[in-house]
Amino acid sequence: MDRRSFLKTSAIGGSAAAATSLAAPVYAQGNRTLTLVTTWGRGLAGVHDSAERSANMITEMTDGQLTVDLKAAGELVGAFEVFDAVTSGQADMYHGADYYFVGQHPAYAYFTAVPFGMTAQELINWYYHDGGMELHDELGQIFGLKSFLGGNTGAQAGGWFSKEINGPEDFNGLKFRMPGLGGEALGKLGASVQNLPGAEVYQALASGAIDGTEWIGPWADEKAGFQEITKTYYTAGFHEPGAGLSLAFNREVFESFTPAQQRICEIVAGEGHQWNLSQFLSENSAALQRLQAGGVKVMEFPDSVWDAFGQASKEVLDQYMDDDLYARIRNSAFDSMRSSSGWLTKSEGAYRAQRDRVLG
Amino acid sequence: MDRRSFLKTSAIGGSAAAATSLAAPVYAQGNRTLTLVTTWGRGLAGVHDSAERSANMITEMTDGQLTVDLKAAGELVGAFEVFDAVTSGQADMYHGADYYFVGQHPAYAYFTAVPFGMTAQELINWYYHDGGMELHDELGQIFGLKSFLGGNTGAQAGGWFSKEINGPEDFNGLKFRMPGLGGEALGKLGASVQNLPGAEVYQALASGAIDGTEWIGPWADEKAGFQEITKTYYTAGFHEPGAGLSLAFNREVFESFTPAQQRICEIVAGEGHQWNLSQFLSENSAALQRLQAGGVKVMEFPDSVWDAFGQASKEVLDQYMDDDLYARIRNSAFDSMRSSSGWLTKSEGAYRAQRDRVLG
Repeated sequence: MDRRSFLKTSAIGGSAAAATSLAAPVYAQGNRTLTLVTTWGRGLAGVHDSAERSANMITEMTDGQLTVDLKAAGELVGAFEVFDAVTSGQADMYHGADYYFVGQHPAYAYFTAVPFGMTAQELINWYYHDGGMELHDELGQIFGLKSFLGGNTGAQAGGWFSKEINGPEDFNGLKFRMPGLGGEALGKLGASVQNLPGAEVYQALASGAIDGTEWIGPWADEKAGFQEITKTYYTAGFHEPGAGLSLAFNREVFESFTPAQQRICEIVAGEGHQWNLSQFLSENSAALQRLQAGGVKVMEFPDSVWDAFGQASKEVLDQYMDDDLYARIRNSAFDSMRSSSGWLTKSEGAYRAQRDRVLG
Repeated sequence: MDRRSFLKTSAIGGSAAAATSLAAPVYAQGNRTLTLVTTWGRGLAGVHDSAERSANMITEMTDGQLTVDLKAAGELVGAFEVFDAVTSGQADMYHGADYYFVGQHPAYAYFTAVPFGMTAQELINWYYHDGGMELHDELGQIFGLKSFLGGNTGAQAGGWFSKEINGPEDFNGLKFRMPGLGGEALGKLGASVQNLPGAEVYQALASGAIDGTEWIGPWADEKAGFQEITKTYYTAGFHEPGAGLSLAFNREVFESFTPAQQRICEIVAGEGHQWNLSQFLSENSAALQRLQAGGVKVMEFPDSVWDAFGQASKEVLDQYMDDDLYARIRNSAFDSMRSSSGWLTKSEGAYRAQRDRVLG
């Protein structure tokens, strides 16, 4: 759906010009309330925090001219309905993980995470300086969205399992919760993959509806309580090496903002990406220690499983290459990753190896 | 000097209350010009960009209510005079590397980089979530500053040398440019260490006044032109594993801003930290390839040199521990580093090792 057809069919109706002229007198009154819907249950560690902080910052920095009213998953619409709510104009903005919307377009995965893809630092390098932001914008235009990266969980843990994983064959028939293209890759190993919103995962795992789940990492996983159900935890995962979260606006709404307000929204999102990533990284070490003290067994997948992950990931990433925009986004992302990864290895990587060696 | 004595001796005079009441009518007129001085020559790659972007963002996001006028090093005051210019009220804000001001307080080094200290990610983790920002503020209060981290160069290169370094004894008598506590550590290896602002380094190296210099990394170093003088380049260094840049305001000036303006300045700085780090990381790989194509020999220091760096760094970091604030800042920074580094190794580190192995 191109931008023109979006305008014709949009539930908010009218033209961009009309939206702009409508909005002007609202500014004059000094305030306007924006409805922010999220893919997160209220209070979900880290991800709800990120949405809430963005809302508060926009409200504060515009001195209330844009007052953001956060509706968590289920309060106005369900977690996976936020995309339609914002494109239709029912809500003004969403905070969520764009890979929930690979059904709308598979390239949305690249703005959260793809298997064997970018770490958080590599993602933001691409986003700012190697074309990622412009490609996110091009994708958003199809649906009438103006999207920004606005959070990041860091590299996500491999997840919680009802049994140990000793080879790729152990995924055969396993009922596992994993969204996005990572989930599709796991499907190629024979897993029965489910895409549940965060607020529903605990119950599914506790009831045996699923045999395992990835969620985020030690801190958020501990808050979700998965350690109460199983003690088998894999720390490093292949599926979300640095999962970005998006702050997305209905495009007509965004274009009705003043230039100063538009810039405030953009910079709030960007700073929120860094703040949220740091939050996860700062909390995870202590949480992992608590989990281990409580009897959780920390595991690493064997190389044979990583090899199978790698092969399956490549197959999944390849299967959408006949879509021009998908192909451009994939190539742009991986080119950037290879480049920035090269210097990171030579500089920070070499430094950290020496620091570990010398300091012990 | 505590805050009370600063107020008594400040060149801007008056009280905080007076500054606030003075400022109010200026807002009403819709604009106010702030003078930003920097430690960077106009156009210095990355670092001047960071200062300029911060200035532009504050101007845009306040819709010109705060219009920032950037004066590069030498345009109003010299590079190393910006600290005094802002504490005295001659200028409103500076953008610079706080370790240039270890003479004012040795703990300033921690808000740029200390030898064998934090990477950029570890630094910002500490800053946001483990007390770093509050400690920066406590340090700034002594001098009448309100400071924010506002940029980062990433892990800096070991630098350019007139000869190869095969053991720690090769530093004996070497005239080398390196600021901050890293420079002090190099002095313990017998080097004659100089602290020159960026704009003066090329000439010093070209004339033989110094035998070598570190600057930033491949991209900024190439722009500075050091490869025209020597071809011996060490990529990983011990001295600045993630060099933060600060955006610091005269505290009375900052306190005269509205809450919305204060928050805009804070968030512009935070987002600028991430943007600038990404800029360096995105540019460095390609720049290194160009340097190598031009005949630059890329080297790594041998372990014996890293061991000597480690010992000298510890001695330097230890020597200020009788200052309570320094001790609290050092302990807080290293505690946070050990914690966040642990999870980074288990998650991103393990993932990147597998990605490199599987993708080849």
